[in-house]
Amino acid sequence: MTYAAPVNDMVETIRSAAGFEQAVADGIYGDLSLDLVTSVLEEAGRFASERIAPLNRIGDEIGSRWSDGAVTTPPGWKETYRDWTAAGWNALPAPEQWGGQGLPAVVQAACAEMWNASAMSFALAPLLSAGAVEALIAHGSEELKQTYLAKLVAGEWTGTMNLTEPQAGSDLAALRTKAVPNGDGSYRITGQKIFITYGEHDMTDNIVHLVLARLPDAPAGTRGISLFLVPKFIPDANGNPGRRNDVRCASIEHKLGIHGSPTCVMVYGDEGGATGWLIGEENRGLNCMFTMMNAARLAVGLQGVAIADRAWQQALAYAHERRQGRASGAPAGEMSPIIQHPNIQRKLLTMKALAAAARAICYRTAAALDRAHLAADPAERARGAAHASLLTPVAKAWSTDIGVEAASIGVQIHGGMGFIEETGAAQHLRDARIAPIYEGTNGIQAIDLVTRKLPMNGGAVVQAAIAAMRQTATKAANAQADALGDAAARLRDAAESLDRATAFLLQQQAGATPDVALAVAAPYLRLFGIAEGLDALVNIALAAVKAVEAGDANPAHASRIHIARFFAGNIAPEAPALADIVLRGADAVLDARDALVA
Amino acid sequence: MTYAAPVNDMVETIRSAAGFEQAVADGIYGDLSLDLVTSVLEEAGRFASERIAPLNRIGDEIGSRWSDGAVTTPPGWKETYRDWTAAGWNALPAPEQWGGQGLPAVVQAACAEMWNASAMSFALAPLLSAGAVEALIAHGSEELKQTYLAKLVAGEWTGTMNLTEPQAGSDLAALRTKAVPNGDGSYRITGQKIFITYGEHDMTDNIVHLVLARLPDAPAGTRGISLFLVPKFIPDANGNPGRRNDVRCASIEHKLGIHGSPTCVMVYGDEGGATGWLIGEENRGLNCMFTMMNAARLAVGLQGVAIADRAWQQALAYAHERRQGRASGAPAGEMSPIIQHPNIQRKLLTMKALAAAARAICYRTAAALDRAHLAADPAERARGAAHASLLTPVAKAWSTDIGVEAASIGVQIHGGMGFIEETGAAQHLRDARIAPIYEGTNGIQAIDLVTRKLPMNGGAVVQAAIAAMRQTATKAANAQADALGDAAARLRDAAESLDRATAFLLQQQAGATPDVALAVAAPYLRLFGIAEGLDALVNIALAAVKAVEAGDANPAHASRIHIARFFAGNIAPEAPALADIVLRGADAVLDARDALVA
Repeated sequence: MTYAAPVNDMVETIRSAAGFEQAVADGIYGDLSLDLVTSVLEEAGRFASERIAPLNRIGDEIGSRWSDGAVTTPPGWKETYRDWTAAGWNALPAPEQWGGQGLPAVVQAACAEMWNASAMSFALAPLLSAGAVEALIAHGSEELKQTYLAKLVAGEWTGTMNLTEPQAGSDLAALRTKAVPNGDGSYRITGQKIFITYGEHDMTDNIVHLVLARLPDAPAGTRGISLFLVPKFIPDANGNPGRRNDVRCASIEHKLGIHGSPTCVMVYGDEGGATGWLIGEENRGLNCMFTMMNAARLAVGLQGVAIADRAWQQALAYAHERRQGRASGAPAGEMSPIIQHPNIQRKLLTMKALAAAARAICYRTAAALDRAHLAADPAERARGAAHASLLTPVAKAWSTDIGVEAASIGVQIHGGMGFIEETGAAQHLRDARIAPIYEGTNGIQAIDLVTRKLPMNGGAVVQAAIAAMRQTATKAANAQADALGDAAARLRDAAESLDRATAFLLQQQAGATPDVALAVAAPYLRLFGIAEGLDALVNIALAAVKAVEAGDANPAHASRIHIARFFAGNIAPEAPALADIVLRGADAVLDARDALVA
Repeated sequence: MTYAAPVNDMVETIRSAAGFEQAVADGIYGDLSLDLVTSVLEEAGRFASERIAPLNRIGDEIGSRWSDGAVTTPPGWKETYRDWTAAGWNALPAPEQWGGQGLPAVVQAACAEMWNASAMSFALAPLLSAGAVEALIAHGSEELKQTYLAKLVAGEWTGTMNLTEPQAGSDLAALRTKAVPNGDGSYRITGQKIFITYGEHDMTDNIVHLVLARLPDAPAGTRGISLFLVPKFIPDANGNPGRRNDVRCASIEHKLGIHGSPTCVMVYGDEGGATGWLIGEENRGLNCMFTMMNAARLAVGLQGVAIADRAWQQALAYAHERRQGRASGAPAGEMSPIIQHPNIQRKLLTMKALAAAARAICYRTAAALDRAHLAADPAERARGAAHASLLTPVAKAWSTDIGVEAASIGVQIHGGMGFIEETGAAQHLRDARIAPIYEGTNGIQAIDLVTRKLPMNGGAVVQAAIAAMRQTATKAANAQADALGDAAARLRDAAESLDRATAFLLQQQAGATPDVALAVAAPYLRLFGIAEGLDALVNIALAAVKAVEAGDANPAHASRIHIARFFAGNIAPEAPALADIVLRGADAVLDARDALVA
């Protein structure tokens, strides 16, 4: 039930899978060193284990409670949040100009994984605040920035995202919340929003809502949506919380998991209208949202990694401790720890390999965002942005899918105890289950990948990713390391499979049958994740092979080589099957449409 | 949230996948006709939808409650159980000699699916009673039979299975509960049992516990375990509940799902010893358990089918109703029901195809049990028994795995609403999650399949199953039905994959590396389920093709053909990948042992 941040694996992933050294050579990270990154992560890991992880069960058992419009977070939540912000963790990724520490996305990614692994429902508050910060920096007026940014960056106030309405979930075109100009630069907002994470709580003395709404003369559909900032308390002349705004939390949801995180129904304008201010241009609200979408989706992908790792740590500890049956070679008359049984080993390795691959994909995405934001050369920035765009739906969907998968395996390893709530294994499954749904369902991510991301630059972005996999496979083959098993050949197969599936989908998109791509988007995304994940794990393993050859006896190297080999031989064989489904499976989906609709 | 039993699909599965007509021709079912089967299932379906299905949510929300040793089942539970037994449903599969209706296992399988689909935690009470009936019939003394069987068959009393102890879950060798002879033919039982389903409840005026325990002089390990009958109230001279026995329910568990079903800690002999009677011979308790194991494991497999079908029905209804986005070809300016989106169609078809395949595997297993029990020819009985033995671990593990998978997809189709408990989709996932764990974990099932079932008759049993798949593939190819897509070729591929993997495992078993088989048992079982499931679905589809050719316009035929084709093109391509993992994946599991143990 405890959590220890895998700092060494994280640093090694940043280095060997996310290309840290190349990025340093390219001048992207200034004078940031891996040593400094390690120190930051070690400190974050201590806070996560010692302060946040103990909140996880109590957050689940007691949950956030609603009463008469107010939300009480679970015991310990408020104090821990206060200390966490005081230690500067909320400000980590923000620019120094606004009080942030200006650390790159790749460092923030590792820290975010820790906050979520220690208590996902606690980590959701800052996750949403970060989105608000990003939107304000990119699109806010100078006045809004001056009023809100420092407080949001410090974590003194939290931020929220108000998109969903009962009739408008994945489809924001159906949005109905209204905004009417007051004539003084402010607007009156009226409407109801649902599924608002931390829409109300008791951890800070103000909450800054970012709300999508329509102006009176706005065109229908998504081109008539604007973004507004609506504070819970309107700041007074000194910037302190002043008059209570006309926004309230009508109720919170009774959910499968993340009980600590209040999921609010927010009502704007019950008494005439909440006062809000426009962010960015009129009717360009969705564009403002897209600005922060990559970061938010990556953050949710990291929740999948986090839960997978937490579930793995718990299952590993249990498998060492629980004795049942006798493993081959064990002394007669003694029960062996179940970790000595090969079928349990397969399950544990599956959890670990999936978590390691998802972590690598997410950190890689973060590194691409860093390149997009920090490279000096505009062409490099564009390359980074394109790469991040391509990887983001995979980071979000693949990682959250494997988060659920790993948590479910974790329950299974616990046997009957896994089904008992006190054990804690079931909580991970319940918590994990939201991540494939929110911040754009994984179905939406797959559609985004095949319809928007593959065609970027005429397919050149995805083709560059596939070329990189082939290069890694060649490097692995040349390494001639027995310990890698058939990882090189499996990676080559996975890259070929992805190439075949990609070429097919690009052709379908260009042709007259876009529905084909939609029908096989999900298996395509899974295939992409497997290929990208294996590529990353092989890169990490190749570094380990080098270290071992150089005489480094750290057992972590052997373990990393093993994980790549296990993934290659026991997960990656799915790749050609998925390509097969992509190429030939769509007809059976589309032809059955009438049978299902009837 | 309602449930409608898919009676037509069930009957068609019994007919075309479970070989009902052949069995009738072989004289197995006497004068039982498909018409009669249909009437029974229709009546059962009415009871399930109208009386049991409405209990499902309340069972989850309120759950069974413990207080001072007594357990109160949720509101409506008791009355519904009374009416259900009064209507004769509990007695359906039992021999007429004991008041049963003597209907075959294949009919009971379809009914059991209905009880579990309508409320899994309600259906668990009779599921356990049926095991007690079976054990008593096979091994009980005449006196025990006379005292208990009629009441258990009628459902007037319920039965339980007391195997697990804290230190003895999958490994019963570690069992500690003691039984000491009283000298009058009875025994004093002392010990603690955990995870006892319906160990205590308020639905009947007596409960009959079947308890595994050790005699004083018993050898260590599994050969020193005996089976005892321990009633809650010891029947008086008239056979009515008399003196309270020394057994009590110390507490019930707080579980992830099946809240309506009380999972009890049972304490025997707090006041000196509970009175029990031996069932079967001393030290042969495990053999008595094995008698009913096949039936109980099949019953749990049917829970997987049931939850998958219930989740599918709910997701289908939601997908028809919920509107988001515009499907291609839909009128501009209107949101389409999400069922018109190809990615949602893929999800729905996956749920339906997995449920249909699992149903067919389970009914087939039941039909093999019928052959084992009812065929006149001993060789036919042996053939049936061997086939049932082979299929049972697949029916249990594959069906419960897909039960979780389908329930999880069901949550996903509901989007954000799926995570809200009131929707009911999440309950299916929570309930489904126990089935891969209890009645022998799915890991144990996979090990049973590869280590005990494959070697039966020198491999001849599994080889006959593979030969049947090849035969179906040939029939499908000869049918030349375009609507089947590439189902014939896919089935041939699946059979080849299974053949390859089977030959490899038989070789490993015979050789010096049994751990290899253990390391890949799980992917082998999944492969088996896919091949067997596709075979069954193609058999059903071939009957549908014939019906269509004969001019039958029932749209169910087209739907059944579609489901086989969808499974063939979108699920079965996994088969060669799984064979690949079986043949080459074990080393990476076994070599990593040290890395994990370290």
